[in-house]
Amino acid sequence: MPRSLRWQKHKEFAVPFMTNEGEEEMIQIAILGYGTVGSGVAEVFRTNQELIDRRAGVPVRVKYVLDLRDFPGDPVEEVLTHDFQDILQDPEVKVVAEVMGGLKPAYDFTKQCLESGKSVCTSNTELVAAHGPELMRIAQEHHVNYLYEASCGGGIPIIRALNEALTADEIDEISGILNGTTNYILTEMTENGADFEAVLKEAQELGYAERNPEADIEGHDAQRKIAILSSIAFGKTVHYEDVHTEGITKITPVDIAYAKKLKMQIRLLASGYRSEGKYYAIVAPFLVEKKHPLYSVNGVFNAIFVKGNMLGDAMFYGSGAGKLPTASAVAADVIEAVKSEGKTLYSGWGEGKIGLSSLDTLNRRFFVRIPADRAEAAKEVFGEQIRLFDVEEAPDEKGFLTEVLTEKEFEEKASALGDVISRLRVNM
Amino acid sequence: MPRSLRWQKHKEFAVPFMTNEGEEEMIQIAILGYGTVGSGVAEVFRTNQELIDRRAGVPVRVKYVLDLRDFPGDPVEEVLTHDFQDILQDPEVKVVAEVMGGLKPAYDFTKQCLESGKSVCTSNTELVAAHGPELMRIAQEHHVNYLYEASCGGGIPIIRALNEALTADEIDEISGILNGTTNYILTEMTENGADFEAVLKEAQELGYAERNPEADIEGHDAQRKIAILSSIAFGKTVHYEDVHTEGITKITPVDIAYAKKLKMQIRLLASGYRSEGKYYAIVAPFLVEKKHPLYSVNGVFNAIFVKGNMLGDAMFYGSGAGKLPTASAVAADVIEAVKSEGKTLYSGWGEGKIGLSSLDTLNRRFFVRIPADRAEAAKEVFGEQIRLFDVEEAPDEKGFLTEVLTEKEFEEKASALGDVISRLRVNM
Repeated sequence: MPRSLRWQKHKEFAVPFMTNEGEEEMIQIAILGYGTVGSGVAEVFRTNQELIDRRAGVPVRVKYVLDLRDFPGDPVEEVLTHDFQDILQDPEVKVVAEVMGGLKPAYDFTKQCLESGKSVCTSNTELVAAHGPELMRIAQEHHVNYLYEASCGGGIPIIRALNEALTADEIDEISGILNGTTNYILTEMTENGADFEAVLKEAQELGYAERNPEADIEGHDAQRKIAILSSIAFGKTVHYEDVHTEGITKITPVDIAYAKKLKMQIRLLASGYRSEGKYYAIVAPFLVEKKHPLYSVNGVFNAIFVKGNMLGDAMFYGSGAGKLPTASAVAADVIEAVKSEGKTLYSGWGEGKIGLSSLDTLNRRFFVRIPADRAEAAKEVFGEQIRLFDVEEAPDEKGFLTEVLTEKEFEEKASALGDVISRLRVNM
Repeated sequence: MPRSLRWQKHKEFAVPFMTNEGEEEMIQIAILGYGTVGSGVAEVFRTNQELIDRRAGVPVRVKYVLDLRDFPGDPVEEVLTHDFQDILQDPEVKVVAEVMGGLKPAYDFTKQCLESGKSVCTSNTELVAAHGPELMRIAQEHHVNYLYEASCGGGIPIIRALNEALTADEIDEISGILNGTTNYILTEMTENGADFEAVLKEAQELGYAERNPEADIEGHDAQRKIAILSSIAFGKTVHYEDVHTEGITKITPVDIAYAKKLKMQIRLLASGYRSEGKYYAIVAPFLVEKKHPLYSVNGVFNAIFVKGNMLGDAMFYGSGAGKLPTASAVAADVIEAVKSEGKTLYSGWGEGKIGLSSLDTLNRRFFVRIPADRAEAAKEVFGEQIRLFDVEEAPDEKGFLTEVLTEKEFEEKASALGDVISRLRVNM
């Protein structure tokens, strides 16, 4: 019994389709990595096999799963290999799901698969942000696809929306809540009044945050994701290291109290903007106004707001992470790769690089905290019209919203005033 | 000067691309109808011509606009025709945007275009709901496409999401706020406390509601849209006439007051559900809980909530109507049709029909209004645990939420109690 048929014992519908010629036609795939996402991908193919076959137009079967570990008793044993060469050398494998994460060995494995004429579908944000254009070029040279829907926003089909649906629009803004861990922390801080460290610890215990949470809480994960999304939206590579990035570690319960009084939410936003031929990108905690669609995105959910010059405002919302939502996106990419065999799909992420402009000229309002005794000075610097207020949690200080200012104007005024306890940008 | 080049005078980038062979390659399109959406489609192609050409991979030019009227001084004059045969007989026209609305003559025109090997892209909800499967079959027989992204949710790319992105998921629920007019009316009633008739009149003055608003306020537009979306999500035709439909004309300021006290929003929801192999669909005003993603969809915006068996919850939000958002969706379909020339794209809407099951067995909570003196009787019928409350606006009555009940159980209890002033379903 061939390997692919043994695997089917564990599935609901085990009858391979027959082509008109009476011959069995089937697409074999491989999964690199049997961690959270990898086991999810196997589960999606097991659970939804019949409809996946129908939508792909041909039966799709998992022939190999690559992992260094053994999984005694798991159905994956039937298709498990420890040797990448088994997959690379097998001409029957047409599509590979790379869900290992990290740059090594994922980069080499991906490149070799593409060069062997296998499409690769991935959830690996780090790899796409670092080597996306090169891997897409290799895919194109070999008439296959490098697809990465799951790399941004987990189960939210934002990359396909940008590449295939919003094609008649010039995108002016793409702003997202792209990291579930930080959104969970900020939501918990808002709902329970707890401080950052306590909520982080709880999130780690619940498995919502990594033991080493830096990539999330310092904004590096969101930075990579907005670089990827901006590259597609704006047509050339936005390098993630160019994106100004601030994390959420300095957010305190006092900030949250002020936000509540303003009827706003503090959210880690990752944004790319296009304005008068210039491009900007930033990751930072923002105060989000109640009327903005991103205001009500809570917990581990993600959402991406898009402004098109014809479409106006749109938003895409869903599970930004998690085993099955991410696996669903990888599996949808596998189906897409199967359907487009022999043809590289259009990607909005074209050749070349976008140099980001300094944030100095970007306009917005700012929220500022100062010592209570600097209220008069604040009015002198920021104008008589500012309305100072306070919260119970910090009786010795005052807060206020500025008028719309450029970042540069704000910084100048803030240093003229001195004594600024903290400031947050406002998303309008 | 050929017609297509004269039209380009009005555009930003007038240089046709050259193919490798040095020959000019170009796709000609026609727009049927120069009303709100039609003029929007022309505007999208004029404004975003360069990027549309890049994304389509070939220059796309508007060769004809069909309308019975004349438009003196409008750039459309250069390409205007009153005779459909000009378009039908012109082999250069590869894609037609049908944005006339209505069944006649749109149905005949669409059929003839498809039979002549022209793809058709439409915003015509009525036609897609009535003849979608037939027109898609004709398109397939002629290796062209019948695309209708703009028919549901205006600029929201929900149809492409269902057909191309959520392909690894069995869809368990699709629920939308699919009609901008009714959502505007309910939002205004909520925010300003005005009554239905007054807000409708205002909406008509602002152009948000038709002079003959029945299709919107009685739910018929949403009924057609949810039939289309359910057909794609569930794989076979859900006939719109089978969808149980209630409009919003009976909603009063008292209902709104109760909703506020419950911290819920009243919204016209259009829903399709799949459960244990059975299918259900309903259009009706619902109370939407605050934690539900559809809760904060206000004004003329639309949103569609999707629950997949792997993906979990997702939501797509944007402008559900309006000239440019709808035109953006039609134009994106035109680009898709150009890119897929010679190949009919996959549609989840397969052959056959889905017989909808009776709503009797569907479970949910209900909100009930009764005369104040029936409070004790209500507890006897619906259980001691119900919590009766009232609102200032209606001192002589009480309201309460039931436990989770099937529709049938609810109806039985409601007639046992008698005297029910009104009831609303709760979306959980």
